[in-house]
Amino acid sequence: MSFEIIAATEKDCGEILRFINELAEYEKMSDEVVATEELLREWIFEKQKAEVIFAVEDGRKVGFALYFHNFSTFLGRAGIYLEDLYVMPEFRGKGYGKALLKELARIALNRGCGRLEWACLDWNKPSIDFYLSLGAKPMDIWTTYRLTGETLVKMAE
Amino acid sequence: MSFEIIAATEKDCGEILRFINELAEYEKMSDEVVATEELLREWIFEKQKAEVIFAVEDGRKVGFALYFHNFSTFLGRAGIYLEDLYVMPEFRGKGYGKALLKELARIALNRGCGRLEWACLDWNKPSIDFYLSLGAKPMDIWTTYRLTGETLVKMAE
Repeated sequence: MSFEIIAATEKDCGEILRFINELAEYEKMSDEVVATEELLREWIFEKQKAEVIFAVEDGRKVGFALYFHNFSTFLGRAGIYLEDLYVMPEFRGKGYGKALLKELARIALNRGCGRLEWACLDWNKPSIDFYLSLGAKPMDIWTTYRLTGETLVKMAE
Repeated sequence: MSFEIIAATEKDCGEILRFINELAEYEKMSDEVVATEELLREWIFEKQKAEVIFAVEDGRKVGFALYFHNFSTFLGRAGIYLEDLYVMPEFRGKGYGKALLKELARIALNRGCGRLEWACLDWNKPSIDFYLSLGAKPMDIWTTYRLTGETLVKMAE
């Protein structure tokens, strides 16, 4: 059995969308997904607003991580923010999630970034336990606020 | 009295650092600030990992917003993430914070972004009340996890 991590290219948008939908289903948020292959092609590969790596077992893509650069004003430098991390259920427990995270930690250090961050749903105890075991620190004194759709349009007026 | 919003340029790094330090003091996190003018020049203006706008009253910079692009896999497109929003205490209550947020909402819509997001400390009730009054939705089922320093290096090994 072989395992490797590879960077996604423009021809992978269908696979990326499949993983996004599978993760949304696990998160019980499928009704929020409006992404399409076309949008992913435009925003990831043309406008370069995110990057994607795949976990590949014996030539088959079994998981992915989508990430982008965030920025810490305290550190005065960029970080890496992991937006989605997903491994197909039948391939879990083999270390692929951790391998994807390790690769992101390497990318962060290679680029001189100061942090690797991501968000986790508060009910997702298996993932939280996994993250804590890696030494990740919960930033639980902060809450994220969001304007979207009508409230965003109203704010711009 | 005149008021305008302008984009920061490379010569503004000293002013940006001053605002970062003043905001950190308000957040009781001054000991976490290791940013320098040099780092800000490198990461904001050379590597272009963030952007900054100023609130300017009668030619004087009285507040700032530092932001970058994040990415929503559900929307399939980028958003705007506001990392720091700050108005000097003696210039508060004049609508400058809201003016900075409105400008970011306009930038988000102009660029085709789907969201405007930011984090707020849970004890900062005046800010939370302000954000809720704008229609912002707290994403309080999520917690951010962070690897930094030694835990990030260990993860990369």
